[in-house]
Amino acid sequence: MVDVTHEIEKFNVRAGAFVLASASTYFPKGTIHVAVVDPGVGTERRCILVETGQGFFVGPDNGLLRLAAEKQGVKSIHEVSNSKFMLPRVSSTFHGRDIFAPAAAHLANGTSLSDFGPEIHDWVKPGFAKVTFSKGVLAGEVLHVDGFGNIITNVSEQEMPRLGAKDWIYLELPNSKLKLRFGKTYAEAKPKEALILIGSHGYLEIAVNQGNAAETFQTKAGDKVKLSTSSKQ
Amino acid sequence: MVDVTHEIEKFNVRAGAFVLASASTYFPKGTIHVAVVDPGVGTERRCILVETGQGFFVGPDNGLLRLAAEKQGVKSIHEVSNSKFMLPRVSSTFHGRDIFAPAAAHLANGTSLSDFGPEIHDWVKPGFAKVTFSKGVLAGEVLHVDGFGNIITNVSEQEMPRLGAKDWIYLELPNSKLKLRFGKTYAEAKPKEALILIGSHGYLEIAVNQGNAAETFQTKAGDKVKLSTSSKQ
Amino acid sequence: MVDVTHEIEKFNVRAGAFVLASASTYFPKGTIHVAVVDPGVGTERRCILVETGQGFFVGPDNGLLRLAAEKQGVKSIHEVSNSKFMLPRVSSTFHGRDIFAPAAAHLANGTSLSDFGPEIHDWVKPGFAKVTFSKGVLAGEVLHVDGFGNIITNVSEQEMPRLGAKDWIYLELPNSKLKLRFGKTYAEAKPKEALILIGSHGYLEIAVNQGNAAETFQTKAGDKVKLSTSSKQ
Repeated sequence: MVDVTHEIEKFNVRAGAFVLASASTYFPKGTIHVAVVDPGVGTERRCILVETGQGFFVGPDNGLLRLAAEKQGVKSIHEVSNSKFMLPRVSSTFHGRDIFAPAAAHLANGTSLSDFGPEIHDWVKPGFAKVTFSKGVLAGEVLHVDGFGNIITNVSEQEMPRLGAKDWIYLELPNSKLKLRFGKTYAEAKPKEALILIGSHGYLEIAVNQGNAAETFQTKAGDKVKLSTSSKQ
Repeated sequence: MVDVTHEIEKFNVRAGAFVLASASTYFPKGTIHVAVVDPGVGTERRCILVETGQGFFVGPDNGLLRLAAEKQGVKSIHEVSNSKFMLPRVSSTFHGRDIFAPAAAHLANGTSLSDFGPEIHDWVKPGFAKVTFSKGVLAGEVLHVDGFGNIITNVSEQEMPRLGAKDWIYLELPNSKLKLRFGKTYAEAKPKEALILIGSHGYLEIAVNQGNAAETFQTKAGDKVKLSTSSKQ
Repeated sequence: MVDVTHEIEKFNVRAGAFVLASASTYFPKGTIHVAVVDPGVGTERRCILVETGQGFFVGPDNGLLRLAAEKQGVKSIHEVSNSKFMLPRVSSTFHGRDIFAPAAAHLANGTSLSDFGPEIHDWVKPGFAKVTFSKGVLAGEVLHVDGFGNIITNVSEQEMPRLGAKDWIYLELPNSKLKLRFGKTYAEAKPKEALILIGSHGYLEIAVNQGNAAETFQTKAGDKVKLSTSSKQ
């Protein structure tokens, strides 16, 4: 049992989805991940269990599991609705303890997916999971600002080849238009200089060497971001 | 080994007692709980080991273990005074490491309760553990304000039947007199509306849907609280 | 697997070294400690594996491991440079995940020290590890100010006999000259009174009973400190 983090901001499903997508990649095949950032607890939002090519995810159907599960390839999604696999008394305010953790334990003990509830196909797709490409421009949004002020976008490494070969990237944020070196390590930039790189999480990241990129460029999670290799776009 | 939390406020025995009482319920039979919030370390306060119907609690005799242990039914209390079961050198400032954790390890390895020290009967009873009922009024105090601003009282679910059937509860806090819906989930109230419910921890809780009850009602841990089902009290 | 802490201040190698030296003492023989506070990640600083009389330490060669390893007696130091024992793709920004943790896992699985890389002898010695003794004066520096405001110096218990028998210690900090009782527990001092003692970590500590020593004496980590048993020095 590994306790990844309890430091996701309250109600911040997007930040939770980002951390889950970053961390879950490094767990062994067959891992059951339980995640809870759950502003809708006590309402009609469903509890779900996602089977992927690498393991399983249990949590609320609010988009929290989506980035991580799609990274691993989704095989099936079941609603967790069978009260036989919940605690005897389910609180309306703490499904992590009363529904998700018991479901994970029963799954680990061999309960089959279809016993938890019906298979579903219409799980919630969060806005922060969408990246588009049109006329040489990749458009996405800021997924997260980490504790160092690095700006992490929802544009993943897999989408970068669309832009072709590049040493420099033209970048548009709500408060800044930038031309940044596309580098490999923070230290390629001079102190206080910005660059863009694939972060350790596999997403495109804007950083300032020994500085705070989010403060420098007045950027926050949710901001729109556009990328291209030409100043014309 | 499960690490529950390191986020109890310094010296706040009441908050520690509340979290321990909330969490310990969900551990399997035979669990040994070690808890430390210990403003009196280095003084004469005793180290104790409490046996309950469900498991064991090890920690300082300052009330920290009392809510949790009484929830499980106390069978015996022993002082931990035999230095044979402590680290070879006991620091005066860190009994968690030098006395409580080693005692828990020896207990897990089969040391019998009476080997740790004499049985005692006069353990410290904290003020926050007292709830009274008189003339239709339940009187207690605020145990904790959680990270969402929910006001958690020391009135447990088991004490609620004394008030009889109720849809509405009359509530008195130091700065507010309230009539609140007795509900089951936060979402039963409109956004920014208050209600009262049994929280996921088993204690009576005053909440504001999508808001901060402690700020709204200017309430803090330690405040007195009175409950009844009639406006006359 | 025990998760000691994620609460070391960013880039603060000295604070990390202190916590590692304090905590590692209490783990069983053969423990493999992985530690990361790593301002130089992505630069030329080496990854190292230190074998001691008690176990192993894996981390960056920036001084982080030095206090802890020297407490246990250093037997050998190897660079971790063999990519066979790293993750297939090593990020330039997260060696904890891509190099240190895999090295620890391979070591636990029986890989021999020399397979990781060449033995080295010139590991980085941090300034905060130096204590001198001359003409009756022990000179060191403040290693850490803990969450209670206690001032922890880099003068260890083993160095105290140099000062001879003492009930009082003359102490010089950048903003204060003090004569303090050399005590055993915080409670030996009156409330708000200062004293000096060997802390639970084995280092000399200046504390104010029920108060904040660092605020009282305007002291911070890195400050120079001098100790003697005579007012003449």
